[in-house]
Amino acid sequence: MFFGSDNQTGCSARVLQALTRANDGFTPGYGDDEWTARAADALQKTFDTGLDVFFVASGTAANCLSLAALVTPWQTVLAHSGSHILMDESTAPEFFTAGARMQGVGRGCGKLTPALLDNHMTVAGQHVPHNPQPGAVSFAQANENGLVYSPDEVAGIAAWAHQRSMGVHMDGARFSNAVASLGCTPAELTWQAGVDILALGGSKNGCLAAEAVVVFNRKYSQSVLQQRKRSGHLLSKGRLFGAQFSAWLEDGHWLDLARHANRQAQALAVKMQSVPGVSLSWPVAANEIFLCLKKTSVARLHAHGAQFHEWYTEALPLGHALQEDEASIRLVCSFATRDEHIDQLLTAMTQTD
Amino acid sequence: MFFGSDNQTGCSARVLQALTRANDGFTPGYGDDEWTARAADALQKTFDTGLDVFFVASGTAANCLSLAALVTPWQTVLAHSGSHILMDESTAPEFFTAGARMQGVGRGCGKLTPALLDNHMTVAGQHVPHNPQPGAVSFAQANENGLVYSPDEVAGIAAWAHQRSMGVHMDGARFSNAVASLGCTPAELTWQAGVDILALGGSKNGCLAAEAVVVFNRKYSQSVLQQRKRSGHLLSKGRLFGAQFSAWLEDGHWLDLARHANRQAQALAVKMQSVPGVSLSWPVAANEIFLCLKKTSVARLHAHGAQFHEWYTEALPLGHALQEDEASIRLVCSFATRDEHIDQLLTAMTQTD
Amino acid sequence: MFFGSDNQTGCSARVLQALTRANDGFTPGYGDDEWTARAADALQKTFDTGLDVFFVASGTAANCLSLAALVTPWQTVLAHSGSHILMDESTAPEFFTAGARMQGVGRGCGKLTPALLDNHMTVAGQHVPHNPQPGAVSFAQANENGLVYSPDEVAGIAAWAHQRSMGVHMDGARFSNAVASLGCTPAELTWQAGVDILALGGSKNGCLAAEAVVVFNRKYSQSVLQQRKRSGHLLSKGRLFGAQFSAWLEDGHWLDLARHANRQAQALAVKMQSVPGVSLSWPVAANEIFLCLKKTSVARLHAHGAQFHEWYTEALPLGHALQEDEASIRLVCSFATRDEHIDQLLTAMTQTD
Amino acid sequence: MFFGSDNQTGCSARVLQALTRANDGFTPGYGDDEWTARAADALQKTFDTGLDVFFVASGTAANCLSLAALVTPWQTVLAHSGSHILMDESTAPEFFTAGARMQGVGRGCGKLTPALLDNHMTVAGQHVPHNPQPGAVSFAQANENGLVYSPDEVAGIAAWAHQRSMGVHMDGARFSNAVASLGCTPAELTWQAGVDILALGGSKNGCLAAEAVVVFNRKYSQSVLQQRKRSGHLLSKGRLFGAQFSAWLEDGHWLDLARHANRQAQALAVKMQSVPGVSLSWPVAANEIFLCLKKTSVARLHAHGAQFHEWYTEALPLGHALQEDEASIRLVCSFATRDEHIDQLLTAMTQTD
Repeated sequence: MFFGSDNQTGCSARVLQALTRANDGFTPGYGDDEWTARAADALQKTFDTGLDVFFVASGTAANCLSLAALVTPWQTVLAHSGSHILMDESTAPEFFTAGARMQGVGRGCGKLTPALLDNHMTVAGQHVPHNPQPGAVSFAQANENGLVYSPDEVAGIAAWAHQRSMGVHMDGARFSNAVASLGCTPAELTWQAGVDILALGGSKNGCLAAEAVVVFNRKYSQSVLQQRKRSGHLLSKGRLFGAQFSAWLEDGHWLDLARHANRQAQALAVKMQSVPGVSLSWPVAANEIFLCLKKTSVARLHAHGAQFHEWYTEALPLGHALQEDEASIRLVCSFATRDEHIDQLLTAMTQTD
Repeated sequence: MFFGSDNQTGCSARVLQALTRANDGFTPGYGDDEWTARAADALQKTFDTGLDVFFVASGTAANCLSLAALVTPWQTVLAHSGSHILMDESTAPEFFTAGARMQGVGRGCGKLTPALLDNHMTVAGQHVPHNPQPGAVSFAQANENGLVYSPDEVAGIAAWAHQRSMGVHMDGARFSNAVASLGCTPAELTWQAGVDILALGGSKNGCLAAEAVVVFNRKYSQSVLQQRKRSGHLLSKGRLFGAQFSAWLEDGHWLDLARHANRQAQALAVKMQSVPGVSLSWPVAANEIFLCLKKTSVARLHAHGAQFHEWYTEALPLGHALQEDEASIRLVCSFATRDEHIDQLLTAMTQTD
Repeated sequence: MFFGSDNQTGCSARVLQALTRANDGFTPGYGDDEWTARAADALQKTFDTGLDVFFVASGTAANCLSLAALVTPWQTVLAHSGSHILMDESTAPEFFTAGARMQGVGRGCGKLTPALLDNHMTVAGQHVPHNPQPGAVSFAQANENGLVYSPDEVAGIAAWAHQRSMGVHMDGARFSNAVASLGCTPAELTWQAGVDILALGGSKNGCLAAEAVVVFNRKYSQSVLQQRKRSGHLLSKGRLFGAQFSAWLEDGHWLDLARHANRQAQALAVKMQSVPGVSLSWPVAANEIFLCLKKTSVARLHAHGAQFHEWYTEALPLGHALQEDEASIRLVCSFATRDEHIDQLLTAMTQTD
Repeated sequence: MFFGSDNQTGCSARVLQALTRANDGFTPGYGDDEWTARAADALQKTFDTGLDVFFVASGTAANCLSLAALVTPWQTVLAHSGSHILMDESTAPEFFTAGARMQGVGRGCGKLTPALLDNHMTVAGQHVPHNPQPGAVSFAQANENGLVYSPDEVAGIAAWAHQRSMGVHMDGARFSNAVASLGCTPAELTWQAGVDILALGGSKNGCLAAEAVVVFNRKYSQSVLQQRKRSGHLLSKGRLFGAQFSAWLEDGHWLDLARHANRQAQALAVKMQSVPGVSLSWPVAANEIFLCLKKTSVARLHAHGAQFHEWYTEALPLGHALQEDEASIRLVCSFATRDEHIDQLLTAMTQTD
């Protein structure tokens, strides 16, 4: 019962086959190979636009290379106070940006909004060069509360940012889950709504280690190209990423996988909510479920071997306080979550000790 | 009527005389001169302990060299959310620390406390290396709300930090005002209470450009020595700092100047409070006054040539909301604030247009 | 005819099988999986000592994480002037070390020696903090001229460094080729000779993307642990590295692959030398060959589809100047270089146009 | 007998008077004062052009802020191998540039030339992003061998740089000595010849602590503005720099001081050369003298209390090797060097023990 993260699996069978196929033969190194070219083509088709893409092996690298392209070291990045880049990537954003300021906004609110950003601007001083000025807005899609931004919501944030000469970064570690959930096109959710750079994640949804910095606003490409090498993220054997991404995108495989993960999350959420004493912290829009439940239940689940994380209480909705005997947890479904895993979890949950 | 900051003056007459006297003759460079030695001696006497001192020309440099010695790049610095290092030093802390995380705590509370710090620790994840771990606590004395920490309060914060293997930095841009206000010894307020490094400011209270990184916990000295040079803050003509600091500390001159500034602030606060529609945001413990008043009053003061800053509304006490027609301002008194300056301000304030 | 680099292949069949096998099932993320544990065990056995290991996907990352652990930002790294870390890793060393100085030594000499390092020390000023002081020595094994250091040579360099409180980094991108060439044990070539950190490369000799920061001197481990995350090099699916490294080390597979590559290089070198107008720049000790030959030959080889790089003339032996009509090239053999590739190259080389 | 550096004096009487005069009264902080404005005006007149100026307290800061504006972190700075920025500023250039590569060129040659730079370009690989690409050329005027570049020589270097899209930085710690030596205008030596940013030094020639980043190519100004604050080099009391620079530039005071220093250096050089066993390493063009002499003479001078530095042997002309019993030294004259100081040195030199 692995509900700890959607990175606790291997890759899908199709992706593994592609890796195996791509392993044969000689190719030029450092991304000048046919597999990389094929993946770049697939991305252009998927997003229906010209773009530059830079493959890397981790989401932290993809996010931070994006941020480094968008801000100067004397600017700030505005992100949700519970965002992954603020909470779970060590001080990687500061490292890659050569020391820009990371600024959390919107604690206790589900999603970033122009109103929350406006509110921050009244806080941030405007006295240059004393007060660092925001240079980019970053948000995750699907986000860290398991919610998704509609194309209009993305466009609202992006317009807000661009009006103030800020760049727009989307952390798409679970972008496929968001697309599957919203049913819109990848284009509608990104460059058509004003996203400058998307960190597109494959690793959490069917790949082994494959993330892409997708640069729609190509004035940022040179920075990513140079910083990828400079940060050790340019791999010699480009086929590793090329094979994964081309197989992942082919025939809508990536969305099939995401739809399965989302479906399982919906099913699990429904079942968990039917258990007395369990409440959802946020609506389930993608493949993550945030729940409050009794500490005794948490203990019982762990005792039955269920893997999952207790979660930051900071991430609860404003005004939502845990009871003494309650805990907040996160359950994540993936392409590999089978019905029996869910059933086992529910059995453990409801079983009388 | 210059109430904008205590840095809007020149230096005191005694300090100027010392600078003039020290200007004659040849000396070795880079701090190997007798004036620097004299100032270092004066500091050891003032603080009644062995210490290492590194002179620099700005408070930002003094603060950030201190922080850089206390934390690794993958740690965080805990500081009051309204602290100068967070609000007014651009991204200098990130620059000097090679990209550590700056973490604000205690918004709307007057001072940092162990309880506020505890509360933050429940927020900060403990998952190494994903969640950056706090490496230092930094607070200002007197602080950015014009308040001072008693020796016991300093000791409480320092003990909290040391129990968790964190270093303790005191931003002493207005340390002299705090000592003058509290009437305790410099030793009691610093190393005896657990402060590892004090950034001691002379520039705001009688010097022209003289700040000292005072390292009580000497294991941090090598870092400051090297980083001072590396950041361009080792000046060739050490007499500039040596002369200022030795004259400033001699015969309690620094405290005489601070007492004057504090007294003027008290007098001004009393008079301002007597004006209808004016309220103090925080008690006045040193030489800064934070007030809420009508926007019309602000305009009138500016029209009469008064210099001061409107202030971050974030810095108001929790739950204290400004009315639509109100503004928050800061007034600062210095060693050079004369009674007539205060009288002029009051006249402008109360005059019928 | 791919002689451009030993990274122009996929992985070996055994490594691919291990990857396939490891792909099944759920595991904890971020290296807390059985595959990673197995690989770490295999390394301890291979090196016959306790050690800490941190897997990453690129040699640049492995090298630079090592350097970042060994030096402070105000120190220098002494490396051969033609070293990979100086020539081919962008400014990654400066990035990871937060701005330490990279210092080339020994131009035109085949290998780094204590005498060359001594000579540098007479150049480097000793005036702290003005002159940056060397903090580490870094050298490659096999090195960038295709030469190998004997255990005694390694020990000589390491002793020189340790006597001056410097750390010792070995760039082992082709460590397996060196071990295969020298016939000594991995232990003899590393920690027994005084190496503090080895960046051990799998990618150039049978893996797809697998490098290991092998920390023998464990006081450096905490830095690597933290910086690996902070630089985006901690991958979620640890099995990717675990499977590769455990299969690579098992049954001496890594050395079998390296022996093959070395043998092919020897064979190629012998044949090339027999061609009139061709001369070796350096003896061939591992799997790289450096040659001077006519530009017309270079053109002919390229015309026949041979892939290889023209090489830095700086890398030629002292006093060895190219003739106008000559070029310097590098040919690299790998585990995948077959006899027919060599024959094709020779045919192209000797064929009358 | 202080010949150690031109920074071993105080400031000139005129500059001290200006400081004293400027000390009175209140002004806005952080450079928004009349003294700063006056100094900026004086610089525009001196250089006969529009420019932006940023005052700082040290030459290291002025140089490194300049470099940080000219290069990206993945580029290199080409500078003379014996340049101050490479030898004597710790790793400050790497710090300010967020980790660009410092590249020495022209060892053993007196000055940087386009031919030397060309030669370097054959060394530096052109393979982006693997090989870092040069982004700026930096040279000192007067330089570290005591030589000066004619306007044509400056123009030659600048044209070479600009043809390759590199920026041009002049380290003008002794710019006044160069102007005094060459008899050309400041404009001819800088922006008219293609210099983008000049780090203009006052501290070594009559000021106490006053350096100016003079930005001729204003596209670089925003970076310097922001980085000056971010590195702690924006001082609150702008009058400190404003008063010094305006008095220094007034009535050609700066050139009078420089002419004196140069004259004394010429006189000293002539006299020293007349002593048997003494030879000049380089012609004396400004206020620094580089000599080879017997170690016994060095010891005798030190015994008589003469202050000076032994010098890097690396800085000797190519092919110029010291004899076993010889040493290389540097003697520096300043505005405060009086005839009697020279006489005393000569007496010590020639006296029979």
